[in-house]
Formats: sequence, structure tokens, C-alpha cells
Amino acid sequence: MKNFTSVYDIDNLQEIIAKALKIKENPLENPTKGKGKTIGLVFLNSSLRTRLSSQIAAQNLGLNVLTLNAAQEAWNLEFADGTVMNSDTVEHIKDAIEVLNQYCDIIAVRCFAGMKNKADDVNESILSQFLKHAKVPVISLESATRHPLQSLADCITITENWTENRKPKVVLTWAPHIKPIAQAVGNSFTEWMQQMDVDFVIANPEGYDLDKNFTKDTKVIHNQDEALKDADFVYVKNWSSFEDYTAMPKVDENWMLSNEKLELTNNGKVMHCLPVRRNLELSDEVVDGENSIIYQQAKNRIFSAQAVFSEILDEINSKD
Amino acid sequence: MKNFTSVYDIDNLQEIIAKALKIKENPLENPTKGKGKTIGLVFLNSSLRTRLSSQIAAQNLGLNVLTLNAAQEAWNLEFADGTVMNSDTVEHIKDAIEVLNQYCDIIAVRCFAGMKNKADDVNESILSQFLKHAKVPVISLESATRHPLQSLADCITITENWTENRKPKVVLTWAPHIKPIAQAVGNSFTEWMQQMDVDFVIANPEGYDLDKNFTKDTKVIHNQDEALKDADFVYVKNWSSFEDYTAMPKVDENWMLSNEKLELTNNGKVMHCLPVRRNLELSDEVVDGENSIIYQQAKNRIFSAQAVFSEILDEINSKD
Amino acid sequence: MKNFTSVYDIDNLQEIIAKALKIKENPLENPTKGKGKTIGLVFLNSSLRTRLSSQIAAQNLGLNVLTLNAAQEAWNLEFADGTVMNSDTVEHIKDAIEVLNQYCDIIAVRCFAGMKNKADDVNESILSQFLKHAKVPVISLESATRHPLQSLADCITITENWTENRKPKVVLTWAPHIKPIAQAVGNSFTEWMQQMDVDFVIANPEGYDLDKNFTKDTKVIHNQDEALKDADFVYVKNWSSFEDYTAMPKVDENWMLSNEKLELTNNGKVMHCLPVRRNLELSDEVVDGENSIIYQQAKNRIFSAQAVFSEILDEINSKD
Repeated sequence: MKNFTSVYDIDNLQEIIAKALKIKENPLENPTKGKGKTIGLVFLNSSLRTRLSSQIAAQNLGLNVLTLNAAQEAWNLEFADGTVMNSDTVEHIKDAIEVLNQYCDIIAVRCFAGMKNKADDVNESILSQFLKHAKVPVISLESATRHPLQSLADCITITENWTENRKPKVVLTWAPHIKPIAQAVGNSFTEWMQQMDVDFVIANPEGYDLDKNFTKDTKVIHNQDEALKDADFVYVKNWSSFEDYTAMPKVDENWMLSNEKLELTNNGKVMHCLPVRRNLELSDEVVDGENSIIYQQAKNRIFSAQAVFSEILDEINSKD
Repeated sequence: MKNFTSVYDIDNLQEIIAKALKIKENPLENPTKGKGKTIGLVFLNSSLRTRLSSQIAAQNLGLNVLTLNAAQEAWNLEFADGTVMNSDTVEHIKDAIEVLNQYCDIIAVRCFAGMKNKADDVNESILSQFLKHAKVPVISLESATRHPLQSLADCITITENWTENRKPKVVLTWAPHIKPIAQAVGNSFTEWMQQMDVDFVIANPEGYDLDKNFTKDTKVIHNQDEALKDADFVYVKNWSSFEDYTAMPKVDENWMLSNEKLELTNNGKVMHCLPVRRNLELSDEVVDGENSIIYQQAKNRIFSAQAVFSEILDEINSKD
Repeated sequence: MKNFTSVYDIDNLQEIIAKALKIKENPLENPTKGKGKTIGLVFLNSSLRTRLSSQIAAQNLGLNVLTLNAAQEAWNLEFADGTVMNSDTVEHIKDAIEVLNQYCDIIAVRCFAGMKNKADDVNESILSQFLKHAKVPVISLESATRHPLQSLADCITITENWTENRKPKVVLTWAPHIKPIAQAVGNSFTEWMQQMDVDFVIANPEGYDLDKNFTKDTKVIHNQDEALKDADFVYVKNWSSFEDYTAMPKVDENWMLSNEKLELTNNGKVMHCLPVRRNLELSDEVVDGENSIIYQQAKNRIFSAQAVFSEILDEINSKD
């Protein structure tokens, strides 16, 4: 694995899930694999789970960890190429990356969608700079359009929770929010589910269809109740309009997942990537209920990260 | 020791002081006690001594340390139960704690009094959430009403500085400030002194009496000069009114501790938890004077923390 | 080496450069030299390279690292002596340093020029407090008037890039900026070049002469083209007026280093300490061009720091 920014960087999804589950059994089985190597965790945005789980995963492998809260600790970054830097940006992202090349064996970066300019976000204006200028492996800690370490943790969690001898039905359902939220988690979960042996459908209101480049042939249903029917797993997540970018078209029905809605499912397990807006996206009773596997997902972020770091280290070590 | 949030979590105060002093002689005597374990240091408020001493103590024991500046690095937290999260809070404290449960073997948290609502502070609205939802031991790095690691360091410091064969007289004296400050340090020092073999009195102006639930039978004197007479230790600290919560009733006398005031004491040692407002709470000459043991207190924060972490680890390791 | 705040703390410049180059060959050759010792990295200002390279250097030597972003994580600091602290500063720098004395074996601090009061900056109002109150070695991570770890990295980089059997010509040239910038890098580079076996000249517009206490007998030329002629190394850096402190007198000529200007040199290598304002200080084509050794300089920050930390540790260990 050269970089890790989407499911398409994975050779064999079942193998990496199995690897992560083995790591979960004994997280310290390779405590020196990363010895003498440094991972730089660069945060251009807020982070709790990603920040902590990445640090734990790196420590479990013996990697040195450098954490950089770019905006608060370093300099205001310029992202546009060729610009005359005579305004309030102090350092070009290109130079910051070239310096990280000198200091790190792996660069991991969190860079949310800017939600200002659709083309910038669709084209991953920030992550693409890392991929262009990094001379070491790049790992996405969530980018404008994807959140792959979350999605791998989601696949691990579904695998752990499915023992029946048939394909589970997995529903990704939109939920309400008060602010325009990026499509990254929805897009990414969709791509990973397309590679899993599951029946996958997406439920969202009219006007909220995800980018066709991610949904492809996945069935999109505009009626939540219909979609939830017989679901074995329900993944809840808000996103704003992709077509009318960042808009929040009015939704008349109540899309918040409640216990009542959950009764439509096949005793479905409830998933969310967190942070969750309680009683807006999900009711308290669902988050705290027996069907919630939300915190298990959070825990699996460690093993998702550790499996990926481990594969990247294998690649690096094979060249040493 | 299951949790550590007040003196009442200590079985035997003299024993833990002795343990801390032994650690001070050789801080690295148990460098692998915390191996493979992780402590999460969660800061909801500013911190210098607590931040650094906790990290050193944890490193001395071989613990992995995760530091989270919650407000700046993660998400704006919601503390109210049952609320519809349709405003500016992004993650419920309950969910953050449940995630920390997945990532940490010990959770340590700093959560000051909000100084907005008396009942919230008295009831420890934030720390109580940690105690309710944490599935791992919780350590207070200062909460709304107490600062127990500071108080233990204070007990260690008094013990180190007392060799006479009689009880020392210890005075906690209020000092001026320009802003309403929480009672946590005053409350906490009071509780710990009540368990120490000392003569303890509190001096504060009228209107500034601490919560009776902390002072109990401790003598409270409203005349500073009278209280300071023959004091062996003088602990200086500001707090705002508890009764008229956060008010700062006018004080006519000058309560700043000066060398002149210090002459009333029995060559009393001067203590302060820091940060100190020089020439407002204490004069420069006192902070920098021969009687000041303020920096020794700061140093003992390491051994206070290390003794507590060590006891918590003993409990965890006994269950492994 | 007791402290490290300028070239004058170095006994033998050639020796420490040689030492750093040896470290570069094998950064992990002394992985336990700092064992059981703690370095506190105190940032009063932003930092990317200094922050990361110092952490790497410390880790390579087995030092424990405590990083403190003073303003964001701790308290608003007071720097004036004798002041009544009844305003918005919460902790005196003197007390913060005394506490760091208790916690650290080495204190490293970044404290930029305030650019408000010339005398404060010239007298190093902040660094001088560290040198006065610290009881452990102090390392400057850039102060009001100098950036010595950068300058040492610059000397290492020049040494690596010079194989001819004659003195190289090194030019420090001023470059345009939009804000008043401190003279620290310019001063510091000047002082170190004066100790190197090079022909050194400074080029800057009229009104931008550096402090004579730093330039001494170094030739200062007000015509960039003339200065660049036959240069083997061109160090580009902006600074504001020292004489009319923080002023930015109008400059009619274009001082931005472009490929056209570079043709005046002897195929000169281009240096900059970063962050760089692209197309303002240097053109994109120069930063990204073949003559740029800017990222090599950034890499050498690790070995500059590691050589200095190593010497300081030798001194500490010799006293243990």
C-alpha cells in the first residue's frame, strides 16, 4: 500500500479486515515494527477519535508520533498555486509538505471540505497537494470527499456483528442537521459497502442525493421507512446537498432515527461515526439503546488505523 | 483506589504521602508499571503545572499519554442531558466519555467551575458526568469544587517542611483578586488539612466564607492578623463569595500577604498553588522570599500525581 | 555548553558542524543519551520546523519531551518586573520559569520580538528572563534578535554544499514583505557567517541596515545586483527597519529574488529559513528550482538541534 486515501488503495478488503481483527486481539504484537520511524499527524481540522486512535495505533507499533495542529501551532497556509503571497497566508502548503517530507516517514492529514467552492472540494484541493508533493506515504485522516479510516472501522464493526449465513442488509440513512455538513462520511461508507458482501441501500430526502461518482449503481431511496425495512445495520449520517452544493433543501418528514423507526428494521444495529447531534440526528434512546454499536465503531478506529499503518510500514520496511 | 477526585478516595493519607516522598527519591523506580496502558489527559481548561506534572508522572511509570485540549482540538461539548442538540454544541460529553472509555485505561480531566450557575458547580455538573459514564478510573485534575492532586502535593510539602515535635499551625488565608475565582483550591485544601495532624484555621473577609460542606468544624476567622499569629504555614489563595455566588463583596482591609504581615507568624512558610497574581495576592518580596515554599509545592505536583497514578495502576493491574 | 542562545555559546564552530553531519549519518547512534531527562519546549509563538525538528532531535536522544503552547494551553503571561498584576496577565514569566526549573532538565523557548518597543526587543526582554531565572540550561528556539538553531543548520547546509578549494561568497539579501518582520534571522545568520570561512556580504535597501552590533565590519551593499555578482550562496530574508524600528521605508527597486537575478550569481545556491512568501520574497521558479537548497536547510534543523541537545546533555551528564 503506497498511500491510503480510499478503498481503492486496498488490495484485498477481507484480508485487511481480518488483519485488523487479529490486531484487536493483541494490539501490542508488533511493538517495534515502526521503530525509528516517524508519523506526522497533521490536523487542519478538529479531531477527537481520529486524533486519539491514530496516536494509539502508532504507539502500538512503536512509531514516533509528531502531532501538528496546523492552524493554531504553525502558520496560516496558502493553498493556491502561483499566487503572490501578499495577503494573510504565511506559508504555502507545498512548502509545508516538502518540510514534512524531510521529517516524517509517513504523513497523515485531516483536511475537511471547505464547503465554499464545489470544484475545490470535489477535486480534493488540499489532499491532492499532499499526494502531489509528498515523497513519503500519505494517509487520509478524512478529506473533502472521503473518510477511509472511518469506513474501514465500519467494515470491521459490521464483520464483528454479523454471524448469519446470508448477506446483511445495510442502510445508510440521512439524518437532520442544522448546518451544511460535508458528504465525506456518506461517500466513503458507500464506496466501502460496494466492496463488501452486503445488500446496501441509501436513504435520503429528495435533493440530498450523493455524488453519482460515489453512489454509482447503489440504490437510492427517498423514503426512509421503506429503506429501513428489514435492515440489519442502519448507518445514520447527515450531509448537505451535493447538487446544489452546501444547500439544505427543506425536508417535511422527520428523518431523525428513533426507536419507533428502528422497529421497522430487522432488530438492526445502529451505527454513527460520531460526533452525533443527539435528538437531532438520533434520539437519545437509540444512541444509548441496546442496538447501538456506535462506541464499538469508535474503538475499532484504533485497529483500522493500526492495520493501515502496519501495511504502510511493511511497504517502507521492504525498501529499507 | 477506584477514582481520585477528593481526599475521601484515599484510604490512608499518611501512607500515600510517604509513598510520594519515596517516589521523589527515585522517580524512575517503577518505569514499566504502566506499560501498555494509556492515560488520557483531558483539558477543558488552561493548565501549566497540572499538564506538565501529569505528563512527567505518567512517563515515569511508563504510561502512554494522550493529551486532549478539548475545546481547541476536538469539538464544542454539550453537557445537558436530554437536550436537542440543534445549537452550537457538536458532541455530547457523554459520547466523548464513552469514546475515551474505548481508548484509555485511565481518564484524567480538568473541568473548572463554570461560575455561571451555583447548583451546576456545587453538583459538579461536568465531573459527575465523567464519574457516571466512565468505565475506567477517573482522576480529577481540578474540578468545580476541588483540586485534589494540588492538595496532596500541599500535604507532601507541609510534611517535608515540618520536623518539630508538635502540630504545626496552618492558616489558609484569602487574598485579593480582580476577578471572581472558584473556591476549588480553598475547599480542597480545607478538606485535606482536616485529615492532617495540624491546627488548621481559615482566614477570610466577611462575605467570603467557604461552603459549610467543606469547612465543617474548621475555625473561620474574619481578621487576617489574628489568624496569622504564630502560623507555621500560610497558604494564600483568592476565592469569590460562595453564599452570593461569584460576587466580590468590598473588602476594606488590605489582605495581600506582605513581609510585614508575615512577621505576625512563627517564621511561617508561605504556600500558593500558582499561578499567582504578584503584588495583588502576595507581594514580590514574599513570593521571592526565604519563607516561600511555592516552587517546592509545584515540584511536588509530580510526586502527588505519580503516587495516585501508581495506586490506580495497582488496582487495574490486580484485575488484569 | 551551558546555554545555547547565540554563536558565542559555541566553543568550536567547525567541530559542532562536523558533529551534526555525523549525527545526520546515523541519527539514532545515541538513543539513550537523554534517558530519564526531560526537555521542555515552550512556544510563545508559532512554529512548524522548530517544533517538529526539536521533537525529533530530542526523541533521537531518548529525551522526554514536554511541549507547551504557552498562550493557548497555559496562562497569559506577565513579563514586567514589579508590576501589580491587576489586569489581564495571570502568571508572571518568572514563576513559570521557576516551575519549569522543577520539571525540566533543559528549557527551550521560542520568544519572538514583540515589535512594539525597540529597547524591549534589543534587550531580549523575554529570553533574558529565562536566562536570569532558569536553573537548567536554556536553548533559544528563536528570540527577539537571534535564531541560532536556524543559523547552525545554515552553516551545516553551506558546509555540505561546498567542495571547492576556495572561500565561497555568501550573500544575505533582503527581500520584500508586506508586514514588519523581525531582524532575528538576518542578525543571527550574519553572526554565524562572521565565524565561518566565507566571504560574506549583506545586501539591503537604504533604511534597512541591520543593527551595527550584529553587522560589525561586515560589508553592507545597498545595490542587490552588485551584491549578487559571483555569489555562491544567496540567503534571502525580509526584515523591517532597525533604525526607524518596525518601519518599512519605500523601496523602489524590485528586490524579489528571481531566476533573472540568480543569473548574476556563480550558479548560486538559494537559501531561506521558511516560511517563505512565494512570489513576494522569492519567485516560485527559484523556490522550486534546481539551485534551491531550502528544504535541505529544513532537514538540517534536526541535526542542528540534535548536536546542540547532545552537547548540553554531555554537560549535564558530566555533573550527575
